[in-house]
Amino acid sequence: MCVRLRWVQKSNFMGPCLSETELISRFFNFNIPGQWPTQGIGDDCAIIQVGNRRLAVTTDTVASGTHFLPNVDPYTVGKKSLAVNLSDLAAAGADPRCFFLALSLPKSDSSWLEAFSRGLYECAKEFACPLIGGDTTKTAKIGHSQAPFSITITAIGEVERGLTRQGAQIGDDIWVSGTVGDAYLALMLRTGQWAGACDSYLAAAMDTPVPRVALGQFLSHFATACADISDGFLKDLGNILVRSNVGAEVYVDRLAVSPQLAQRTQKERRQAQLAGGDDYELVWTAPESARQRIIDYAQKSQENGQPLLLTRVGKVVSSGLKLLNNDGGEIQNTFYGFDHFAQEDV
Amino acid sequence: MCVRLRWVQKSNFMGPCLSETELISRFFNFNIPGQWPTQGIGDDCAIIQVGNRRLAVTTDTVASGTHFLPNVDPYTVGKKSLAVNLSDLAAAGADPRCFFLALSLPKSDSSWLEAFSRGLYECAKEFACPLIGGDTTKTAKIGHSQAPFSITITAIGEVERGLTRQGAQIGDDIWVSGTVGDAYLALMLRTGQWAGACDSYLAAAMDTPVPRVALGQFLSHFATACADISDGFLKDLGNILVRSNVGAEVYVDRLAVSPQLAQRTQKERRQAQLAGGDDYELVWTAPESARQRIIDYAQKSQENGQPLLLTRVGKVVSSGLKLLNNDGGEIQNTFYGFDHFAQEDV
Repeated sequence: MCVRLRWVQKSNFMGPCLSETELISRFFNFNIPGQWPTQGIGDDCAIIQVGNRRLAVTTDTVASGTHFLPNVDPYTVGKKSLAVNLSDLAAAGADPRCFFLALSLPKSDSSWLEAFSRGLYECAKEFACPLIGGDTTKTAKIGHSQAPFSITITAIGEVERGLTRQGAQIGDDIWVSGTVGDAYLALMLRTGQWAGACDSYLAAAMDTPVPRVALGQFLSHFATACADISDGFLKDLGNILVRSNVGAEVYVDRLAVSPQLAQRTQKERRQAQLAGGDDYELVWTAPESARQRIIDYAQKSQENGQPLLLTRVGKVVSSGLKLLNNDGGEIQNTFYGFDHFAQEDV
Repeated sequence: MCVRLRWVQKSNFMGPCLSETELISRFFNFNIPGQWPTQGIGDDCAIIQVGNRRLAVTTDTVASGTHFLPNVDPYTVGKKSLAVNLSDLAAAGADPRCFFLALSLPKSDSSWLEAFSRGLYECAKEFACPLIGGDTTKTAKIGHSQAPFSITITAIGEVERGLTRQGAQIGDDIWVSGTVGDAYLALMLRTGQWAGACDSYLAAAMDTPVPRVALGQFLSHFATACADISDGFLKDLGNILVRSNVGAEVYVDRLAVSPQLAQRTQKERRQAQLAGGDDYELVWTAPESARQRIIDYAQKSQENGQPLLLTRVGKVVSSGLKLLNNDGGEIQNTFYGFDHFAQEDV
């Protein structure tokens, strides 16, 4: 029972060393035995065996400036801050049970809190996941300014088996849900880094992502490994490969693309899809024998009026990560996922 | 299963309205039914029934500037940030099982992280409470400065029965562990608000509080209500009284006092002991029939070389809160506990 936080070991094929990863392995790799059997450490969730039940637990911080643009609507903050945690539960195949909220605010501003609370409540209600504890504090003062908000949510769910990033088998298919890259496109447009307007579809992709809770529970019956792609498709798939000690071949042009992203240059599209992040779709591996079940699930979602794309994008192989175009030609991997401390010395 | 965070309802006898309390009741009093039976909401911990086990879960944020002086040793930050969460578990009578760490840092500074991690590890090891998940993020930028660190820990423990703030009975004794007011005295001395030097005893009281984990487990067999006094003795006792719908008579001069605090003026002593906060001792109520067990426990702690004062300071009555001096004369209650947003409009 070695302790490791949610980021994986330094990857051999992901390019330059990830310093957030090193931070974890150098400073928080405690080795303290616990009374509860634990797995999934280094994953979206830790999975712990508590008596006759198995829990998935995740904790995520979102902050103004880092995860949200400064002028963000507090309703969005409330809704998204819980959604990103439920997305981690989804990746473990968990059924959400409850959550805890640690809220740091510069001041207690009623109108901000009213909107935040409304967004939080909507997400909590949708997933029948009650708020059962928390803490509020004031943010630090810097000079005459108060630091902006920061929110840490810890969400607890229940799993039967529990999906982790470990378990992908050579020969497995690699699948991804939804369209990929829209949140990143929205960010680039809103910040003026790419030309164009952010329409309501893209705004929703960035502001109110839908955690794939039902999909995760469905996958938990047969998938061999799973993660959400919040840190970017390549980084999160990479995490599965490293922890499963396998490689992959990915047909990058098979990643489902929205009409908005399809209009961008190939370079922009690949940047958004492969390295963008802030998408809360799932990537998973599953044996070929599960293909029909997955296709049927996607079909059913359409019949239910909540269509969800499920796309087979590649194959698990013994080692390495090959990115291929539709002709089978190899693309150089110049894309990396998101790392909060990547630009710094540890 | 009404949802309420750790702060209690507005109290009738605690003086002016507590706006942090109002913040919670106005904005986070969701009413979403959950699948797990829950109690203890509004307490140090939420207590949840998971299959055949009962868990206590708490979350606390500590931040530079708010909970720590700006020049604090990162070793202290690591040790105390876990200790304050384990103190909440202690108040629930829980046995710590694991914790999650959400760390927001201005930059990844090795020497800071090394010392922080050492302090955190020491506390985790002492209580056999492994770190099994977390998140790291960069703090927000304000102008050219990066906001200082902020740490949220969620700790999970296991309880047999679980102590909450609800259950104090008329006629119960009121008890407090340890000396009270030392952390506040240390703060006043270090910040120059009171004259004098902060010696190593006081520094330790503020920097490396010992969560009363074993005591909490002992009390869980017979105490009727329990809390830690991290927000100040009067506020935390007040929380028990409100939630138990009872009152109290407290002999304030019976609160155990360190030699250092005993030398201060009566006014300073009372300020530190009644309203100070940042002490991680327990306050609890228990029937008269438990007196001898409690006295025996204190006696045993001395024999074991880890002496722990357990002091009977008052009595639960039907309503109101009377503060009495040793002659039985009433003292006006001009003291209030700590509230992060108390000086502001909600």
